[in-house]
Amino acid sequence: MEKGCPYGTHRVIEPKGSLPQSAYKIDNSMEIFSNEILIDVLTLNVDSASFTQIRDSCNDDIKCIEQTIFSIVKERGKLQNPVTGSGGMLIGIVAEIGKDIQDKNLNVGDKIATLVSLSLTPLKIERIKNINLGTDQVDIEGKAILFETGIYAKLPDDIPEKLALAVLDVAGAPAQVNKLVKPGMTVSIIGGGGKSGVLCAYQAMKNVGKDGKVIVIEYSEENAKKIKELELAHEVIVADATKPMEIYQKINDITNGSLCDVTINNVNVPGTEMASILITKDEGIIYFFSMATSFTRAALGAEGIGKDVMMIIGNGYTKGHAELSLNILRESQKIRKLFEEKYC
Amino acid sequence: MEKGCPYGTHRVIEPKGSLPQSAYKIDNSMEIFSNEILIDVLTLNVDSASFTQIRDSCNDDIKCIEQTIFSIVKERGKLQNPVTGSGGMLIGIVAEIGKDIQDKNLNVGDKIATLVSLSLTPLKIERIKNINLGTDQVDIEGKAILFETGIYAKLPDDIPEKLALAVLDVAGAPAQVNKLVKPGMTVSIIGGGGKSGVLCAYQAMKNVGKDGKVIVIEYSEENAKKIKELELAHEVIVADATKPMEIYQKINDITNGSLCDVTINNVNVPGTEMASILITKDEGIIYFFSMATSFTRAALGAEGIGKDVMMIIGNGYTKGHAELSLNILRESQKIRKLFEEKYC
Repeated sequence: MEKGCPYGTHRVIEPKGSLPQSAYKIDNSMEIFSNEILIDVLTLNVDSASFTQIRDSCNDDIKCIEQTIFSIVKERGKLQNPVTGSGGMLIGIVAEIGKDIQDKNLNVGDKIATLVSLSLTPLKIERIKNINLGTDQVDIEGKAILFETGIYAKLPDDIPEKLALAVLDVAGAPAQVNKLVKPGMTVSIIGGGGKSGVLCAYQAMKNVGKDGKVIVIEYSEENAKKIKELELAHEVIVADATKPMEIYQKINDITNGSLCDVTINNVNVPGTEMASILITKDEGIIYFFSMATSFTRAALGAEGIGKDVMMIIGNGYTKGHAELSLNILRESQKIRKLFEEKYC
Repeated sequence: MEKGCPYGTHRVIEPKGSLPQSAYKIDNSMEIFSNEILIDVLTLNVDSASFTQIRDSCNDDIKCIEQTIFSIVKERGKLQNPVTGSGGMLIGIVAEIGKDIQDKNLNVGDKIATLVSLSLTPLKIERIKNINLGTDQVDIEGKAILFETGIYAKLPDDIPEKLALAVLDVAGAPAQVNKLVKPGMTVSIIGGGGKSGVLCAYQAMKNVGKDGKVIVIEYSEENAKKIKELELAHEVIVADATKPMEIYQKINDITNGSLCDVTINNVNVPGTEMASILITKDEGIIYFFSMATSFTRAALGAEGIGKDVMMIIGNGYTKGHAELSLNILRESQKIRKLFEEKYC
């Protein structure tokens, strides 16, 4: 067995020199290199943006969706939607582990979820067994390859598969909160009512301890109510984060002018950078998880008001993120119940 | 005198609730609020993107450029180019200081450069005296307002005005390097041959000390040669940062596989995020100054290869940045000479 590049460039067909994610086409032949893992795929969890685009283009016709998925994978060697550029995750059983990456914690037969995008994962589909329009999941017979740097999580026995997946999908967020938030801090979570926001709020409450303060800013009345009921924040504000001065006034009042040590932005609408900057204290930290974040709006916004804050680009990966996020479901019966109602 | 909002929202005409930078129109009447500074403007340093757009639309006709500048300021109350969205900086003499922001370090009569963008600065132009197509500078008779949070630098006596301006324009970059880089670190500067890159390389060399290593990655042979001559790096690599694997192999070789503690990205072309991520070691830091940085490419890129790095959005402001950058010109005769040839 030959050894491949840890990043998978040995499978890039075109353009040469690019990484698998930005490549147009990758090699999906299923003989593994000595630092790859072969997976018998059970289910593809298609990225929501991608699945919606395919459904729309097919008017929800199942045969058409099936053909579209087949043709993308045939053309590109991976399930990367050519319109949205996005992929998704997969669940499968480990079929073979290359000799150069034997790891005591992973064995042939283990059920895993890949935590890298399908937009860079070599995939071959033999047969599509079922397409679930409600959950964006596609059950298949087929195989996939995980590169040496590809991350994954073993699916736990004590948490239903779909619940685990829902949480693993955003595992980076609470894990980054855990790294940033210290006892006694004042922390704001903008968009705290969504899936990722709830996990971040839980982790922030745990980390700030009894002397700290967690403030959730939510647009939806319903989500705000839920956060209060679940006691995931000391204060909950219902407001529109695209209106920076309104948000600033409220946080300024609640914190008696001292503002926030850490601000976590989870809102998936554009234009919330300025609110994040205004409510963060001098030398504070802003963590942007939202994919709607504009690099230039953040950079010029902080400079424009002379605000000395550190602004971090959300990285969905950090060590131990899968375990930390699954543990939240083990620690909090309330969050587990909330998510079970929604995702199971 | 009434007191205004520190961020200048009291001067926003439309849309209400927005901040001056994102506002379409702001109030440029020249009676100051008690927390504003009035400036007699000498020269507008128009942002390069904005000035090029105006020149092009006017085919370099001076009368047309003059009229365009007048009409933008008349319509919007500020010199924010409606096409590019950008502004620039200005030089002027302090004419009046509001009673609520008296500061012993600033007096009426001082010559200052504003370090916030013209895209948010109330401006009134009486007369345009001269337009310099070569330097993007417009000498005027007119007035401007600086808000309470507006930052500025007093122009030093020992450094020519244009040289000081060239450096103040990118002052945030070396100042952030100073905050991040510690003795003994290995630091890469991608795009180290430009103005901002040279200042970052100088600061990095100073901070890493005798046990550290500074590597400059430059696309241009000529700039690379300059960096070597000026001894601004331990290693200089001529390569294209849009080719991630090529850059990775070279840095991997130079560092014997240990990669970089800190990577500074100064390249103003798109598609260099992945190279930055690959050459940075696990738990290392990447600082993106380039306005061509894509938030999503950085976020998904790191996650896609399971790389636990902290990625920071470049903030052009940090405390003491003006003084630090001007001091580089005082400390390094070589850099001063290089910049004098280019900007004076």
